[in-house]
Amino acid sequence: AKATRSKFANVNFGDRGMSLEEELNASNTYYLENGIAVIHKKPTPIQIVKVDYPSRSAAVIREAYFQHASTTDYNGVYRGKYLDFEAKETKSKTAFPLKNFHEHQIEHMRQCLQQGGICFVIIRFAVLERLFLLRATDLNSYWDRQATGGRKSIPLADVEQLATEIHYHINPLIPYLDAVDLIMDAPSSSH
Amino acid sequence: AKATRSKFANVNFGDRGMSLEEELNASNTYYLENGIAVIHKKPTPIQIVKVDYPSRSAAVIREAYFQHASTTDYNGVYRGKYLDFEAKETKSKTAFPLKNFHEHQIEHMRQCLQQGGICFVIIRFAVLERLFLLRATDLNSYWDRQATGGRKSIPLADVEQLATEIHYHINPLIPYLDAVDLIMDAPSSSH
Ligand SMILES: [Mg+2]
Ligand SMILES: [Mg+2]
Repeated sequence: AKATRSKFANVNFGDRGMSLEEELNASNTYYLENGIAVIHKKPTPIQIVKVDYPSRSAAVIREAYFQHASTTDYNGVYRGKYLDFEAKETKSKTAFPLKNFHEHQIEHMRQCLQQGGICFVIIRFAVLERLFLLRATDLNSYWDRQATGGRKSIPLADVEQLATEIHYHINPLIPYLDAVDLIMDAPSSSH
Repeated sequence: AKATRSKFANVNFGDRGMSLEEELNASNTYYLENGIAVIHKKPTPIQIVKVDYPSRSAAVIREAYFQHASTTDYNGVYRGKYLDFEAKETKSKTAFPLKNFHEHQIEHMRQCLQQGGICFVIIRFAVLERLFLLRATDLNSYWDRQATGGRKSIPLADVEQLATEIHYHINPLIPYLDAVDLIMDAPSSSH
């Protein structure tokens, strides 16, 4: 059993061709089916312009456009708490570029924090194959400092210090709620 | 001021041609802009089949289909709590038909309740112009009884007894969080 475990532990799940989104969806399905949490990815908002209604078959959307979401991609409920997060990846090996986030996502997380929600981002350094959970409050500090000449990215060393590293697992593939537990159970938890 | 107030109180906002969804969206915008709660309607999920990428202009979706949502339409965070709800209306004057809800919505609310979320439905009797907030736990009782020969709708008299009536207001148009406060502040609050 031990051999099997260490064999699996060496499998590089992140390299199997699943996107970060697919990996998180699979993890959320695991959490849902095991009664651990209810977290869903929100559908992409679409502006529909033209719809055909063929007789005897389903309506077909014939002209539509992708819209920018006004919120983050994921939210749900865990241990009685509202969770809200965004997931992003970078090819950089040295820093996480802030341009991966949009002003409205930052603003949405600020609003949710104000209501007592637990807000964070899951960031992946794709080339390094390293995954972190960074709290929205920490992200916000870097975001705000941009306006006063601060750097446009978060150095990997800072991420290593501030964020919780998440290691790929079997079930769930991305056990990010373990990192959320650390936030929720922290003594001075302001989330 | 008093005259103005009673004048406004008599305005029938529900009859102004806004759908229940539009009225709730307007109410959620009010709650958001006033820092009271962060509640959004989820986009309708769409299965995209064909996308054109014209040069120099935005991608155009040329073939897509409406999908059934796997969750309810609305969720968010209020007073530190996760809120989750669905909104439906009926033309019936005597009872609210259960066929307005889908099995997966009921199941989703059950899952959220298990995690400590606050789950409910906002139901409108369109002809009567009456609006109620009914807790998911109460809805579930009627839902489950269908399987053992129970009726396929909730009589208005039962709704009047179990649910909290919501009266149209100016800002927000539908002050449903007042009814949520009653749930949250109830002494034996199991939501
Ligand atoms: Mg996104
Ligand atoms: Mg709906």
